Amino acid sequence: MVPDASVEEIGSNQSFGGRQLRYRHRSTALDCDMTFSIYLPPQAQQGPVPVLYWLSGLTCTDENFVTKAGAQEYAAAYGIAIVCPDTSPRGEDVPDDAEGAYDFGLGAGFYVNATESPWAKHYKMYDYVVDELPALINDQFPIDGNKMSISGHSMGGHGALTIALKNPERYSSVSAFAPICAPIQCPWGQKALGQYIGDATDSIDPWAEYDTVELVKTSSKGTRGSLPVLIDQGEADNFLAEQLNTQLLIDTAASVAFPMRIRLQPEYDHSYFFIATFIEEHLKFHAENLR
Amino acid sequence: MVPDASVEEIGSNQSFGGRQLRYRHRSTALDCDMTFSIYLPPQAQQGPVPVLYWLSGLTCTDENFVTKAGAQEYAAAYGIAIVCPDTSPRGEDVPDDAEGAYDFGLGAGFYVNATESPWAKHYKMYDYVVDELPALINDQFPIDGNKMSISGHSMGGHGALTIALKNPERYSSVSAFAPICAPIQCPWGQKALGQYIGDATDSIDPWAEYDTVELVKTSSKGTRGSLPVLIDQGEADNFLAEQLNTQLLIDTAASVAFPMRIRLQPEYDHSYFFIATFIEEHLKFHAENLR
Repeated sequence: MVPDASVEEIGSNQSFGGRQLRYRHRSTALDCDMTFSIYLPPQAQQGPVPVLYWLSGLTCTDENFVTKAGAQEYAAAYGIAIVCPDTSPRGEDVPDDAEGAYDFGLGAGFYVNATESPWAKHYKMYDYVVDELPALINDQFPIDGNKMSISGHSMGGHGALTIALKNPERYSSVSAFAPICAPIQCPWGQKALGQYIGDATDSIDPWAEYDTVELVKTSSKGTRGSLPVLIDQGEADNFLAEQLNTQLLIDTAASVAFPMRIRLQPEYDHSYFFIATFIEEHLKFHAENLR
Repeated sequence: MVPDASVEEIGSNQSFGGRQLRYRHRSTALDCDMTFSIYLPPQAQQGPVPVLYWLSGLTCTDENFVTKAGAQEYAAAYGIAIVCPDTSPRGEDVPDDAEGAYDFGLGAGFYVNATESPWAKHYKMYDYVVDELPALINDQFPIDGNKMSISGHSMGGHGALTIALKNPERYSSVSAFAPICAPIQCPWGQKALGQYIGDATDSIDPWAEYDTVELVKTSSKGTRGSLPVLIDQGEADNFLAEQLNTQLLIDTAASVAFPMRIRLQPEYDHSYFFIATFIEEHLKFHAENLR
């Protein structure tokens, strides 16, 4: 199975018996060229394999996880492909934060569909990750599109959790490292949602659709299904107090009896050293749920 | 055991139950400030542990291996510290290649003691790696200085092999990924040795002291001891034909009956994806020889 001209290969390295690949393609949802990385385990040579989507955090591209997390070893062991999208639309005509801040605009798409000008033209990362990219991946690579899980880090942990909670029928499991649990209630989230989505104009709060704590609350009303959740959070994470609101998610999940495994890891910080330490357990968790 | 003011901590992250640390210090051998990274496995909290020195390749700093190789997992499993020096002297007053080339000067010290002007003042990476840095490490960290091994990649594979072959009593084992096996006979090595060391001025060839193939040849004359050697070389490595001379080392080792395990790995290239794939086996090899 060889991808066609709709994707252009821009990187290829042998890794743990499989292949770490990188592609460029034109995104309709984002109206720009995008890059993504995909690891194909050795098992993909025999037929379609399950797939884990990995969503990265602020300032990252599709490459940080690929070079730093050490996930290929376990993706090869469990026979799971890993797809890493970029973290925002890219290109000369894609608007960025007015002051080039790291936490909004380029590298900071927050996995939402922007509705406000000038962001709405390109910043449709929710549609890209949920619909466009999986359709392309399932079409072009040896992937079993019925076996998808999703994970991510920080802003990407927020993305993974909100996307999975809104689409539990599509994903077998979701995990996160140091996710932004309640963007409505932290500076990163308020800045992003305020500009991408704007203020609520009627009784419906549009921000709540992109807030894990809010989605967990409504999950108890039977409006959405459930799925296995694993979260790791370092206790020495510099962003824990101001930005992540982990305890609020723990309390909210308990209050509505939503089963979530949320582990606090002493001494670990917000870095990829933390992710690399626990990525094996996350791959194992997803492998068990993708069976 | 806490380091004193002779080293300044500039990075610290929890990793696989141990600690990935980074320091700055003044090097006497190199006459400049240097950085190095050291991973201390969890076992170092109980007492001195063996240590592996890792020498990186062209353009690298002390950080590439730390972020990309995934070695901490196995260093923690086997209870081995890993020390990563930088690849050249650094600083405003350290001379660089006239055209800023990637393969000479900054980031390209080649682990030799330069004798030619203007390089001789700072470019003493051999003395730094063999003497100054281990003395500092053994003094400041919970390291068993009698249990040292050494490894490296490309230019650093050349460094590890030549240093170990010249000092087999100091190292329990040596390994290398895609080493420059015969710098005398390749463009990278000829450029570096020609400028750092200069031409031979009498019957003694000073380049031969920094050439693995030449050192292996003379090892058979009883002038130096032996030690366990493991080398991995990717067959899809872009530099294999012109720069690395792996087959010459295989033939030379065979001709003098020097036992070396040299493995050719189909499809792997020169990248850290190659290193990450086989680093577990190298750590296991060193752990067995460090017992």
